[in-house]
Amino acid sequence: MSTKRIAGPEIERLIQLLAKVPGLGPRSARRAALHLIKKKDQLMAPLAGALAEAVEKVTVCSVCGNVDTVDPCSICTDPRRDGATVIVVEDVSDLWALERAGAMNAKYHVLGGTLSPLDGVGPEDLNIRSLVDRVAAGGVSELIIAVNATVEGQTTAHFITDQLEGLDVKVTRLAHGVPVGGELDYLDEGTLSAALRSRTSF
Amino acid sequence: MSTKRIAGPEIERLIQLLAKVPGLGPRSARRAALHLIKKKDQLMAPLAGALAEAVEKVTVCSVCGNVDTVDPCSICTDPRRDGATVIVVEDVSDLWALERAGAMNAKYHVLGGTLSPLDGVGPEDLNIRSLVDRVAAGGVSELIIAVNATVEGQTTAHFITDQLEGLDVKVTRLAHGVPVGGELDYLDEGTLSAALRSRTSF
Ligand SMILES: [Zn+2]
Ligand SMILES: [Zn+2]
Repeated sequence: MSTKRIAGPEIERLIQLLAKVPGLGPRSARRAALHLIKKKDQLMAPLAGALAEAVEKVTVCSVCGNVDTVDPCSICTDPRRDGATVIVVEDVSDLWALERAGAMNAKYHVLGGTLSPLDGVGPEDLNIRSLVDRVAAGGVSELIIAVNATVEGQTTAHFITDQLEGLDVKVTRLAHGVPVGGELDYLDEGTLSAALRSRTSF
Repeated sequence: MSTKRIAGPEIERLIQLLAKVPGLGPRSARRAALHLIKKKDQLMAPLAGALAEAVEKVTVCSVCGNVDTVDPCSICTDPRRDGATVIVVEDVSDLWALERAGAMNAKYHVLGGTLSPLDGVGPEDLNIRSLVDRVAAGGVSELIIAVNATVEGQTTAHFITDQLEGLDVKVTRLAHGVPVGGELDYLDEGTLSAALRSRTSF
């Protein structure tokens, strides 16, 4: 990308910041900036306001690690949710994905990542202590560890399970299997083996 | 996409607005929102500020149709530019693309689109009258019509040429080298430079 200045400093700065938004690159950022400028009243002004409001109001839930505009978050304080079941996820994006799936009426605990010694991420960098404390405080009967099926995810799941030793909680994990709509010949052997081992009756 | 609310209304609204930004869709908008929330101080707050500043300051140049924070725009008032050569473009994005190519030290005229009877876009919807007036006022010796190599672009170019009948100005167009059906914004700088160098008379 050329660094030639093509507009005033305010527009240049806007393009540079937009280019840092995931999903946009330098070229998309220019198109986005121009679109925003053209839709000043319909889009740019409301977006500026929504961002400013989010900057002011969004906070991390002190109970579960979710992001919301209230603390504790609206999931933690939702009386219709079954607080006895807590789904442990790596990231808020996973919480959102599970909520969209709408499969469980449970509460959550967001770890904030996975253990990764090579990247210098240890247990103290994740919300593990608060998870153990939450279980120890009572009221949680099942912990569904819904971390990614990666080496780091599984290492983190095992570490958490060890930390919960002696506490009265059932620890489960997501089933391995063929994704709904997935084609067998695109799946790796590990997934296929797991799907075969966990086969169910028609 | 599920319409299930996965976060507070402020975050939902931010996601909905981000989804309207070109380059982002509903899924990317959620990822973008989450990234912005995580980088609140480094990215979300500065972006909110840059957008608010742009909302307040960005304006359309009354001379050429470019967008800038000053009117007339900084290209129109740049004394180092050759005002005798005016490049006519459809959109500000084309102006930006030509500026990045850096091939011509000229001024511009932004039409704001192309003639498109089917879409109800007539001459009065474009900055054509102001272009003719600008040429009639004198001082412009060459008009380079750098519209897209589409049917609408070429129709618009011919219409403009007709309007300039009798005025003392040389009208040229970009050389072939611009792919038929191609949009300027997507072309590499070398192609744009070559097309400008090989411009031909109407
Ligand atoms: Zn919470
Ligand atoms: Zn101007």
